Amino acid sequence: MHVVDLIAAKRDGRTIGADDLRRLVLGYTATDIPDYQMAAFLMAGYLRGFTHDETVALTDAMLASGDRLDLSRLSGPTVDKHSTGGVGDSTTLVVAPLAAELGMQIIKLSGRGLGFTGGTLDKLEAIPGMRTHLTTEELVDQVERIGLAVCAQTDDLVPADRAMYALRDVTATVGNPALIASSIMSKKLAGGADAILLDVKVGSGAFMKTVRDATELAQICVAIGAGSDRATAALITDMSQPLANTVGNAIEVREAIEVLRGDHRSRFVDLCLELVGHLASLSGAAPDAAAGRARAAEALHSGSGLERFRRLVEAQGGDPRVVEDTSLLPSAPIICDIRAPRDAWLASVDTEAIGKASGGLGAGRETLAAVIDPAVGLTVEVKIGDRVTGGDVIGAIMARTDDDARIGARAVLGALGWSSRAVDAPPLIHAVIGPPASLRRCLPAGPLARGAVVT
Amino acid sequence: MHVVDLIAAKRDGRTIGADDLRRLVLGYTATDIPDYQMAAFLMAGYLRGFTHDETVALTDAMLASGDRLDLSRLSGPTVDKHSTGGVGDSTTLVVAPLAAELGMQIIKLSGRGLGFTGGTLDKLEAIPGMRTHLTTEELVDQVERIGLAVCAQTDDLVPADRAMYALRDVTATVGNPALIASSIMSKKLAGGADAILLDVKVGSGAFMKTVRDATELAQICVAIGAGSDRATAALITDMSQPLANTVGNAIEVREAIEVLRGDHRSRFVDLCLELVGHLASLSGAAPDAAAGRARAAEALHSGSGLERFRRLVEAQGGDPRVVEDTSLLPSAPIICDIRAPRDAWLASVDTEAIGKASGGLGAGRETLAAVIDPAVGLTVEVKIGDRVTGGDVIGAIMARTDDDARIGARAVLGALGWSSRAVDAPPLIHAVIGPPASLRRCLPAGPLARGAVVT
Repeated sequence: MHVVDLIAAKRDGRTIGADDLRRLVLGYTATDIPDYQMAAFLMAGYLRGFTHDETVALTDAMLASGDRLDLSRLSGPTVDKHSTGGVGDSTTLVVAPLAAELGMQIIKLSGRGLGFTGGTLDKLEAIPGMRTHLTTEELVDQVERIGLAVCAQTDDLVPADRAMYALRDVTATVGNPALIASSIMSKKLAGGADAILLDVKVGSGAFMKTVRDATELAQICVAIGAGSDRATAALITDMSQPLANTVGNAIEVREAIEVLRGDHRSRFVDLCLELVGHLASLSGAAPDAAAGRARAAEALHSGSGLERFRRLVEAQGGDPRVVEDTSLLPSAPIICDIRAPRDAWLASVDTEAIGKASGGLGAGRETLAAVIDPAVGLTVEVKIGDRVTGGDVIGAIMARTDDDARIGARAVLGALGWSSRAVDAPPLIHAVIGPPASLRRCLPAGPLARGAVVT
Repeated sequence: MHVVDLIAAKRDGRTIGADDLRRLVLGYTATDIPDYQMAAFLMAGYLRGFTHDETVALTDAMLASGDRLDLSRLSGPTVDKHSTGGVGDSTTLVVAPLAAELGMQIIKLSGRGLGFTGGTLDKLEAIPGMRTHLTTEELVDQVERIGLAVCAQTDDLVPADRAMYALRDVTATVGNPALIASSIMSKKLAGGADAILLDVKVGSGAFMKTVRDATELAQICVAIGAGSDRATAALITDMSQPLANTVGNAIEVREAIEVLRGDHRSRFVDLCLELVGHLASLSGAAPDAAAGRARAAEALHSGSGLERFRRLVEAQGGDPRVVEDTSLLPSAPIICDIRAPRDAWLASVDTEAIGKASGGLGAGRETLAAVIDPAVGLTVEVKIGDRVTGGDVIGAIMARTDDDARIGARAVLGALGWSSRAVDAPPLIHAVIGPPASLRRCLPAGPLARGAVVT
């Protein structure tokens, strides 16, 4: 089919065959098909949707556009975890060392995204000396040696996704579930892990605003994973407020280290343990998610998870002393408190506005060329349902200038909604989307999952 | 609004303000906005549609992208006629001279389109020496002197449409009524005529396949014209079969000359007279369409229309002797008859297939760089409802080679559907879409209009 006929077919709601989708994706990646035709196709697809078979074909085509990581040298169950992105979400820094402690081999590849908060790579790079670019050889060696690696995705992995994502970003075609799913899953499949766990965020700080949309996305991803014989599952988790207490780069690393020291009890810790439990269950490292979670909690409290994190930092050239002394991380010259405006319960958070406040301080980048300031950021130490007394310190701004701090504090306060009556805390996990029975080693959600289990 | 937000707004079915549409269209024309963003916008608009106000704003923005013809030097009622395109449609060659005979000043500007049949310019260029590129000065001088000009649209008239049409052509976004209407009407408004008559084709050889779609397009165009204080009307006319008997370039010129000689009685002649009648009514050159039609018939039968055509050819550098001697037009080396396969009534015509058969002979162009052969083409001398006897000559192929002729004849026969029972001829004019009362000098359809009058 000619490209223009293929665009017309999608425009008219017809189904596109796998061969045509493959020619389209590979032709576009090879720059034989121009941006404007792909843009028209993507908008037609955004509005008309894609069938399951089309989504699988799209994923396969994107996967075929580049290399796959060869993990055959690795002996253990290999696992991968992916978050769809949120604010104050540094779970990778806690989950990866704990998963390694449970005997899994975890390879976490990240792109360097745009956004008002830094990505995992930016956070890690706040550690002095830390390298996030590893060759495939270095990566596999490191995982063989210490069980984990967190580094940048190489350019030869799914180049189609890189090209298509950049185009979607400027043509308002990002938010289609099939396009998101094929983008996520092509990278996960190329990453080569046996088990894939998705953390699909939902709420005011996430791309998906409703549990229904998040569930749809998760189901598509899980089905794609299953179709490629990977044990895949997804948790639908709350992003109606920042997950952790900190939003920034160095400051999120500090919080992760504090969590690994066992200092914290929080929603953030709960979610990390839950994710490790499900990874263990999916990969067979534990008989079920609850058992996996229990073992993760042991690794946390024994300090072995922290030691594993120290080895990760050391292996990737970072200064391992940060684990004992977080004051070695960059810090901002101005720190100013944020205080509760009155006696009240925290009722709502405009989480995206919190993220933007952090970005405004310099913790994110709007263009790929922008430089992140690792030292700046903010903390919000109150969660929905918490009661505060007027004047209580509920957070802080870490800024470069007094002006920045003032603007940041005002933005944070503007993002918080208060109530004079008690408010329930939102559930942390809305649902668990399990792998199909044939691939399932264990399914039921852990103790924190208050939502339905959808299979 | 940022371009990506504007794309998202259209994608989500929101209405775009006139200022934003203007920035989009002018930004695209100035190449500040890239093809891929315009492509995504056009596909979103194709699927979500445009409101009346958006369509008017789009037209205004396209108009603002270039110059307008200044016809203020011309004294008489200036008129323009536009056909949405069909097969065997050389009405311009007959309508323009007759309109000039009735005292109208007619400026017919054509783009050089792509398609399986040549455009008006290609047909005229079949006349030895004929120039179709005139400067604005030459154009206005000629119209002042002889009442008509048929020539190429200059590059500085609606450059936005040229850019957008080229993009729509390769992104499957041509067939949206608002986009078609703004494309047509921006050019008509830039052309500067007081009265605008649209011939909106409907049927198997037209872009619009149903009277409903054609009527929708016509109504949008007429409303845009009215909004710009131009007397605008549209006829919805039949394209369920080739309009004239010939399809090609030189051969269509020959048929137009034969019509102007008064040799013919046909649907083609009827439509030409009807169009002139409506032009006369719209422009005030006649009290109503019926009176205009009667005067056009006089001009036809007196030979004064033919003489006016001769002056047109002469004014634009063509050999005026073709009017007396059509053998001066290029002719093809191979001519082969097409014969009726059996005793039957002609029941249907795949008119697009007839057009493609002509294109296959070399009479059209698929790319702008392709060269048209003016000599080739075909005739189909039977109309829906006609009874034929098996073996009757019902047409002919004019080709470069025997092979071409054989393939062409087979294609034409394959496009004709026969019936053993009598078949009614389709109406020639389905409807007349009049100007709003405020701009209407006369409305009712002429004697051939069997459809409803829609205002």
